[in-house]
Amino acid sequence: MKVMRDPVHGHVELDELAVSLMDTPRMQRLRRIRQLGLSNLVYPGANHTRFEHSLGAHHLATTLAGEIDSVQQSEIDELRVAAMLHDIGHGPLSHVTEGIIKKYTRREHEDVKHLLRKGDIAEICSETGLNISRIANHILGKTSLGQIINSEIDVDRMDYLIRDAHYTGVAYGLVDHSRLIHKMQFYEDKLVVTEGGLNAAESLLVSRFLMHPSVYFHHVTRISETMLIRGIEYLVEREKLDPSSLQDMDDYRLFETMRQDDGYAGEMINRIDERKLYKRALYVGFDDVDEKVLGYRKSIQRVEKEIAEEAGIDEKKILIDIPKLPRIEEMKALIKVNGKKMTLDKASHLVATLEKAHRDNWKLGVYTPREHREKVKKIANDFFEVKKHTLQYKLTDIEEDISGSN
Amino acid sequence: MKVMRDPVHGHVELDELAVSLMDTPRMQRLRRIRQLGLSNLVYPGANHTRFEHSLGAHHLATTLAGEIDSVQQSEIDELRVAAMLHDIGHGPLSHVTEGIIKKYTRREHEDVKHLLRKGDIAEICSETGLNISRIANHILGKTSLGQIINSEIDVDRMDYLIRDAHYTGVAYGLVDHSRLIHKMQFYEDKLVVTEGGLNAAESLLVSRFLMHPSVYFHHVTRISETMLIRGIEYLVEREKLDPSSLQDMDDYRLFETMRQDDGYAGEMINRIDERKLYKRALYVGFDDVDEKVLGYRKSIQRVEKEIAEEAGIDEKKILIDIPKLPRIEEMKALIKVNGKKMTLDKASHLVATLEKAHRDNWKLGVYTPREHREKVKKIANDFFEVKKHTLQYKLTDIEEDISGSN
Amino acid sequence: MKVMRDPVHGHVELDELAVSLMDTPRMQRLRRIRQLGLSNLVYPGANHTRFEHSLGAHHLATTLAGEIDSVQQSEIDELRVAAMLHDIGHGPLSHVTEGIIKKYTRREHEDVKHLLRKGDIAEICSETGLNISRIANHILGKTSLGQIINSEIDVDRMDYLIRDAHYTGVAYGLVDHSRLIHKMQFYEDKLVVTEGGLNAAESLLVSRFLMHPSVYFHHVTRISETMLIRGIEYLVEREKLDPSSLQDMDDYRLFETMRQDDGYAGEMINRIDERKLYKRALYVGFDDVDEKVLGYRKSIQRVEKEIAEEAGIDEKKILIDIPKLPRIEEMKALIKVNGKKMTLDKASHLVATLEKAHRDNWKLGVYTPREHREKVKKIANDFFEVKKHTLQYKLTDIEEDISGSN
Amino acid sequence: MKVMRDPVHGHVELDELAVSLMDTPRMQRLRRIRQLGLSNLVYPGANHTRFEHSLGAHHLATTLAGEIDSVQQSEIDELRVAAMLHDIGHGPLSHVTEGIIKKYTRREHEDVKHLLRKGDIAEICSETGLNISRIANHILGKTSLGQIINSEIDVDRMDYLIRDAHYTGVAYGLVDHSRLIHKMQFYEDKLVVTEGGLNAAESLLVSRFLMHPSVYFHHVTRISETMLIRGIEYLVEREKLDPSSLQDMDDYRLFETMRQDDGYAGEMINRIDERKLYKRALYVGFDDVDEKVLGYRKSIQRVEKEIAEEAGIDEKKILIDIPKLPRIEEMKALIKVNGKKMTLDKASHLVATLEKAHRDNWKLGVYTPREHREKVKKIANDFFEVKKHTLQYKLTDIEEDISGSN
Repeated sequence: MKVMRDPVHGHVELDELAVSLMDTPRMQRLRRIRQLGLSNLVYPGANHTRFEHSLGAHHLATTLAGEIDSVQQSEIDELRVAAMLHDIGHGPLSHVTEGIIKKYTRREHEDVKHLLRKGDIAEICSETGLNISRIANHILGKTSLGQIINSEIDVDRMDYLIRDAHYTGVAYGLVDHSRLIHKMQFYEDKLVVTEGGLNAAESLLVSRFLMHPSVYFHHVTRISETMLIRGIEYLVEREKLDPSSLQDMDDYRLFETMRQDDGYAGEMINRIDERKLYKRALYVGFDDVDEKVLGYRKSIQRVEKEIAEEAGIDEKKILIDIPKLPRIEEMKALIKVNGKKMTLDKASHLVATLEKAHRDNWKLGVYTPREHREKVKKIANDFFEVKKHTLQYKLTDIEEDISGSN
Repeated sequence: MKVMRDPVHGHVELDELAVSLMDTPRMQRLRRIRQLGLSNLVYPGANHTRFEHSLGAHHLATTLAGEIDSVQQSEIDELRVAAMLHDIGHGPLSHVTEGIIKKYTRREHEDVKHLLRKGDIAEICSETGLNISRIANHILGKTSLGQIINSEIDVDRMDYLIRDAHYTGVAYGLVDHSRLIHKMQFYEDKLVVTEGGLNAAESLLVSRFLMHPSVYFHHVTRISETMLIRGIEYLVEREKLDPSSLQDMDDYRLFETMRQDDGYAGEMINRIDERKLYKRALYVGFDDVDEKVLGYRKSIQRVEKEIAEEAGIDEKKILIDIPKLPRIEEMKALIKVNGKKMTLDKASHLVATLEKAHRDNWKLGVYTPREHREKVKKIANDFFEVKKHTLQYKLTDIEEDISGSN
Repeated sequence: MKVMRDPVHGHVELDELAVSLMDTPRMQRLRRIRQLGLSNLVYPGANHTRFEHSLGAHHLATTLAGEIDSVQQSEIDELRVAAMLHDIGHGPLSHVTEGIIKKYTRREHEDVKHLLRKGDIAEICSETGLNISRIANHILGKTSLGQIINSEIDVDRMDYLIRDAHYTGVAYGLVDHSRLIHKMQFYEDKLVVTEGGLNAAESLLVSRFLMHPSVYFHHVTRISETMLIRGIEYLVEREKLDPSSLQDMDDYRLFETMRQDDGYAGEMINRIDERKLYKRALYVGFDDVDEKVLGYRKSIQRVEKEIAEEAGIDEKKILIDIPKLPRIEEMKALIKVNGKKMTLDKASHLVATLEKAHRDNWKLGVYTPREHREKVKKIANDFFEVKKHTLQYKLTDIEEDISGSN
Repeated sequence: MKVMRDPVHGHVELDELAVSLMDTPRMQRLRRIRQLGLSNLVYPGANHTRFEHSLGAHHLATTLAGEIDSVQQSEIDELRVAAMLHDIGHGPLSHVTEGIIKKYTRREHEDVKHLLRKGDIAEICSETGLNISRIANHILGKTSLGQIINSEIDVDRMDYLIRDAHYTGVAYGLVDHSRLIHKMQFYEDKLVVTEGGLNAAESLLVSRFLMHPSVYFHHVTRISETMLIRGIEYLVEREKLDPSSLQDMDDYRLFETMRQDDGYAGEMINRIDERKLYKRALYVGFDDVDEKVLGYRKSIQRVEKEIAEEAGIDEKKILIDIPKLPRIEEMKALIKVNGKKMTLDKASHLVATLEKAHRDNWKLGVYTPREHREKVKKIANDFFEVKKHTLQYKLTDIEEDISGSN
């Protein structure tokens, strides 16, 4: 038994199996991959990594699995391996490179069977007699037990919500995870929250809801991450970066690779290094535009070009950000009430209403260097047919008081 | 300048005026009045008092007032006196005796002008030239400045929400009060939250919403407080306790007075001392009964008698608890968006939905000693025409795992 | 399994045995006994009780015992009962009445066998086949296993140090108890800290050292508690209070009993209620007087009388406080280094030096009503032959900035 | 006014001047420089950066300066600029590259006048009329006001102690900084702690003392940082890295530069990336060797060579680490007692003893790859004439339970 110090969970115990996994190069790489991408440009304390998150998920999975009867130790071990390794498929800056990896390699970050079959990890599994296919399926959430680490309400979410709140310093993210874990069990082959855990589950969902605008969708993060993604794509298109290598890289190498470029990618990383970011020319909510704008998600580059031409500037100076409509998957987590399973939104009025309220967090953004802001604003406003009244309260929320004159 | 240590706010500075108020017997009495009534029977750490809450409210009021321009020092001083003294009208166990005091003296606990006009407090005000009527009106929330301590979103609520969360150990009560205070200002004579404070205001409302079932409306607290109230009324009716003296008593004297009684009041306090409480015979939500049950609030004793007779037991063995429909007054707090004032529920979908969800927290309870439980359950069920389907998830929430087999 | 919420330890699990003990009247009484006596007059948050401390000690004992192999479940159960009940011998305000109880009944507060043999507790032990004598001996620290709850470094100390720090808000009291517990084991029949726990043990000792002047020996606490003790003795001498009943009383009854008195006891409790305390006429450290002053500990009343006569005032207006020299028993806790047991002060230079430094915390105090302060100061100064140079830095530490002009 | 969220200090306000400084490339670079070098290999949460520490120091300096009367705003501004910029002279991984920078450029990291005279920073100072020389001298601690940021007890230390404790999760590092700051003032041109701050100052020193073995001198950190330093020197000697460029680099570039090397530097960074570190062949305290071993500090490479030859292995496989004797400079901080200045160790027995106890934290280490461990152990043991008895308790402290079988 070894013990690690974790600022979130305190003492975290690790047995021999966990230590051997942790000591593989593939896990060690996660020490150099930021959990929250470029959120540290908004919250200077948000430098935590996928490594500590993986330890945290492993810790919670071990705790939760320990409360389930009638599971064999080898099954628990496979689940614990899955919890520890669930993020090894991430590229630099976590979710930031997720889309690019998927675009070019067709792999989701949870799809890691090919990584499990290599090197030290394969060896450890073979020595301990653990089944790699089952582990891979746990990570994909395709097994019953795997619901613990990948389902609507899993230890992955619990850990990152608490951890992100801790390192950003955003107080309201506090989730009562020990109660929640204590109140979860398997019922008819499904992982369910039992009645006594309803409040804790509600608080998890609310926490996620409140973290959204302040952290996950903060416009400065959206802008800088969009800039970075475009820089990477620029390199990939010019064959200066092999997208299939991203899953082996860390943040350090990505930054340095981009810095070597003397074109657009170099400009983007330089702007990020010095925090001289594009600014918002347009930033409006779902009620401010027609629903059809979602249709532009597939032809963003064309729209950027169109607006750029009308503004008479280089198309690379326009970045358009149209997110998917945010969903709260946790709403569909199961709760057991009076012996019956139902989804959380059926059992709680509060949860039921969150999805609708969650639309407030969706924003369409058009970003451009400061000097083109005014010009682009007008053109983009017309292009997306932004409604007149537009209640812009969410627009300025927090924005004005976070570093960087963005 | 003196400094107090407060577990919630850390260092709290007090000037000469604040210290002189704090040192009056009327304030010192609050050291012996529990903030949360009998909640310590559920949360053993909830022993905090009105005294520290008053210091906290004073601290926050001083901070908030310090950010307002164009107010004279003497006005601020009057407000600070009001913040410090806003709870001196409370009787033993705070809200527990509130109803009785009102019933017999026609006074709300905020109605304290008669207390300000007496003794040391009157003297301090006179010496410093502060106006007692204005202070009394601040406490009643009848003045513009008084909104800081008594309005839909005031420092009183901020302090008690955070403090109650701290001492109960219920994690999700954390409110980002420093952000909220930083984002409040007066606008057209109204205290408003500015746009950047929307998230913080939302988190305050959600916190209050989540604390409700776990803390403020926990059934063990409802039961024991109802028992205590009936014991007090028994003494008042027999002229063994002068209700007008309650505002001068502390928890110690109330308990001892009841212990001296060898009748019903004595039995009630003995049961509370030993935590041998009545149990729930019925405990159902708003959707489980017809709205008309609210009509019984005015004739509770008659209903108790009726059920008792049918059950063939002493009417004192039946306690019926029909709360008012819970409201979230904070929803009507004002927020300033794009230069316009509006209520919070207009500016936030989340807030708008809380009131409806809040009904989940209402419970009708019928309590009785353990041995009569089954019998009373059936009769009460019929009497209140409880619907069949009845989703009882909230019923068992938390209950089964808090001390006392209640 | 029930779960309690504890602000210090979070979720605390209790099995059936623990719940049945907790629900006895003797344990419930501890809900109304303040852990820190009158420290709430200095730290308004210090309202925590022996009840929650007992749950905390039980929790830590269960954790620590769970890490020891080769102990039978029934032995662990007896230890856990001992941990839960270790403080049932306390009278009102904990240590404040300890001396009086001992003086008149010859019982230490750990001597509780007579209480275990009565009522519900005896019944529970009998039903579960647990041995009352062994439990009583655990509490006295006379058994091997009992070292867990009563020895130089035990769970009792760990819990109260952390808890007192939490509720006073004094930050530096934080002890790394989870590491410490993890690093303790039995070795040659002794409870020892293993090498990896040295730092954690050091931090526990330092924490205790730093809490001493700020909390445990704060002069306002010393003054008010001395006043209270004298009031109680006044009642006992006049047979208005039976000292053997103290172990059955709670804080409420003690206060009310004193309030009924119209003599000296009534005056003392009234002064405490209104925080109109005696003031320091003399307050000097060990280096400021000759060691022989310790000899006066046995004849304090005579000295008080002598000084009073010289000052021409009633002897009841003089209170003299000469504590024992403070010792740090934890220094003699055992640590296992390279397979050898040794005491902590042998293994750590830091610990070795604390005892000497701890003398800085000893103070001789002479207290009197404000109006006699100057006069008494001179006389007491002469009487105790206070040295001239006298470095008084500790004298004013904190004092000037805590509420009450004391 | 902008507001940043800091996990340590909560809301941190920044005025226009502070924001403009923060937005310079030189400050932004600090976002990518780890505060604690390679401590994240021991404490996975220790990823915090010089950037947030600089904001924290600026925040504390602003608070402390705000309590000093009779200082002009422009003087305060210069001090605040100094606090914000005090760490811009650091190279990658902070203290890790400090020695190399000094060796080749003769500059301490506080010597930053040449950096202030360049680019945006020079411009901001010029526009606001602030004097660069005075700012540089503040940073060097050569001015009176500069004692706030660079003296025996300054805001720099306060911030990093609290911050390091927060991110490592080591609980006992908690310093009561708000009390301490509240109790500091200028007296006879010296920054002194006043009497009421003695306890808080003691707790700061103790905190530092306890953090030493667990964090700052943890052997895994010492080993990995020594490995990194040797790798850098290897590159410098081969002119593959210009040491004068280190002050412009960030962690990312340093790692990548080393990774490009296919010799010794490449091997070192690869071992660090994969956490395949050298192990301890020898690790002994000050009492275990003769004082003369300190003499070897100047000829470490010669000793390494000698031991390597005797062991028959490459001299690069031996790393010797002989730290300077640790000192606690804070002991010489000034405290004002009864109107007289004295150093802390004169006013507190506790402080006086810490320096001696601090020697326990000194360790001589000889590190080598695992396979050579036994052989090297014997030779090194003889070479340094390690005493037989050797109490090795500190050796194993924590070590066995931190990740990596080191």
